[in-house]
Amino acid sequence: MTAPPGRVVLVGAGPGAADLITLRGERALREADAVVYDALAPEDLVALAPPGALRVNVGRRGHDEPTRTQEDINQLLVRLAREGKRVVRLKGGDPFVFGRGGEEATACLAAGVEVEVVPGVSSLLGALAAAGIPLTDRRFAASFAVVTGHKDPTRVREEIDWAALARSVDTLVILMGMRNLEDLVGRILAAGRDPETPSAVIMSGSTPEQRVVEAPLRELAKRVREAGLAAPALIVIGEVVRLRSALEGSGGLPLLGRRVAVTRAPEQRCARPGPPCTSCR
Amino acid sequence: MTAPPGRVVLVGAGPGAADLITLRGERALREADAVVYDALAPEDLVALAPPGALRVNVGRRGHDEPTRTQEDINQLLVRLAREGKRVVRLKGGDPFVFGRGGEEATACLAAGVEVEVVPGVSSLLGALAAAGIPLTDRRFAASFAVVTGHKDPTRVREEIDWAALARSVDTLVILMGMRNLEDLVGRILAAGRDPETPSAVIMSGSTPEQRVVEAPLRELAKRVREAGLAAPALIVIGEVVRLRSALEGSGGLPLLGRRVAVTRAPEQRCARPGPPCTSCR
Repeated sequence: MTAPPGRVVLVGAGPGAADLITLRGERALREADAVVYDALAPEDLVALAPPGALRVNVGRRGHDEPTRTQEDINQLLVRLAREGKRVVRLKGGDPFVFGRGGEEATACLAAGVEVEVVPGVSSLLGALAAAGIPLTDRRFAASFAVVTGHKDPTRVREEIDWAALARSVDTLVILMGMRNLEDLVGRILAAGRDPETPSAVIMSGSTPEQRVVEAPLRELAKRVREAGLAAPALIVIGEVVRLRSALEGSGGLPLLGRRVAVTRAPEQRCARPGPPCTSCR
Repeated sequence: MTAPPGRVVLVGAGPGAADLITLRGERALREADAVVYDALAPEDLVALAPPGALRVNVGRRGHDEPTRTQEDINQLLVRLAREGKRVVRLKGGDPFVFGRGGEEATACLAAGVEVEVVPGVSSLLGALAAAGIPLTDRRFAASFAVVTGHKDPTRVREEIDWAALARSVDTLVILMGMRNLEDLVGRILAAGRDPETPSAVIMSGSTPEQRVVEAPLRELAKRVREAGLAAPALIVIGEVVRLRSALEGSGGLPLLGRRVAVTRAPEQRCARPGPPCTSCR
């Protein structure tokens, strides 16, 4: 019998908490022969792969080995699949939202390797939910835009038409904008956006280190500077930010996005061998 | 001993396939005393609640009972929680993306009822992934916007500045735009967007009935009309649509978003009583 052909599954790990992966993603991890992951994928999820599975950290935050380029990662995925392995490429958030999933899928398919994409909860949405801010709300917002200051991470993107953007959507989310916050806010105000527009900056969203500063747009940069917030952070501008205040006033905010206590009794645990799985802990 | 206080958990069910819910969402369903769901929530997920749980379909597609207003649904959630029930409000996609989760959370908190939000895979992203189209891709798109033709479902929204929108983001997604497709495309072209911009309409995205029509922007309305596509459908305009063709050319497209076969052996199933759970089937 010949070995089954290898394949690559791009799995979205969700916004950071291990139990925000999908059931389909969890299943792919349990069946993996190799897991290729980066700094944004929770360690608890990497641990779900079978004990004998190969685990490769391609994260850019480690200092113990040379940084891998995207091309290196693409080649690694192709090589492992060609060895007949079921490869899970575990990525924070969703593979298709600022996740380079498109590049990895294209590289695998170009090499004749079968690819599947398992979507995930975008870390963008996870961070906003944890801060009590919906992207849309029928009462306040029927549209949103998400932009990043960088098209290529090596170059700051100059060509965004901030004036047009400021006028065209209800909720505006800016990623990687902390370095230019003062300048960005200035352009948005110059485009005619109301200086009183509720705005917020969310640092380390949906993690235990999360910090949020909320202010009218005209004061946002000053208040963020005073509070000492730094990248990585999300900037969100729009009436939906009001909802956060409303929820806070009701005393309910800390519950939004809170982690469900996982307290399954021993007799309810799976019969699977090995350490308790994410569902059973 | 007094009964524990009731609470409401807003759970995102994901884009349609039962195994695209999060582990946290599945856990909340298994612990629910009541599930309030609508037409977009998969039946398989409603079945995960304990056998004795109350199940209430508040969907707008049924004809056997009068349609409930959003206010009726809010009141139902509050009433069930006040009876001491752990209430799961199961919603298609993500509760905070065109999901009215903000309205329901506000209503519960205003009534003194504890609320938690469990995010989900937005159906928007699920549909695009199933069609092989990333929202962003470093090579093609560093920004996206999502707009709907309706702020309030009873009124067509007139105030969107389509000209500004067309110029300000790389990927543009329009929900509920099928009725005005010809008009919308005309405005976007008039704003100076390249007539050759790759574009697509995805009907019934990520379901077995999914149909996709891809065309340059200038031909999109005509090709969609010829193909007979109808609402509900997503319109997506931008260079990322190119990736779909690239994947299709490699023969890989049908695998994107495909469902993982779930074939756990009987000895690997949970020891939990009752019918096999979603993870074990």
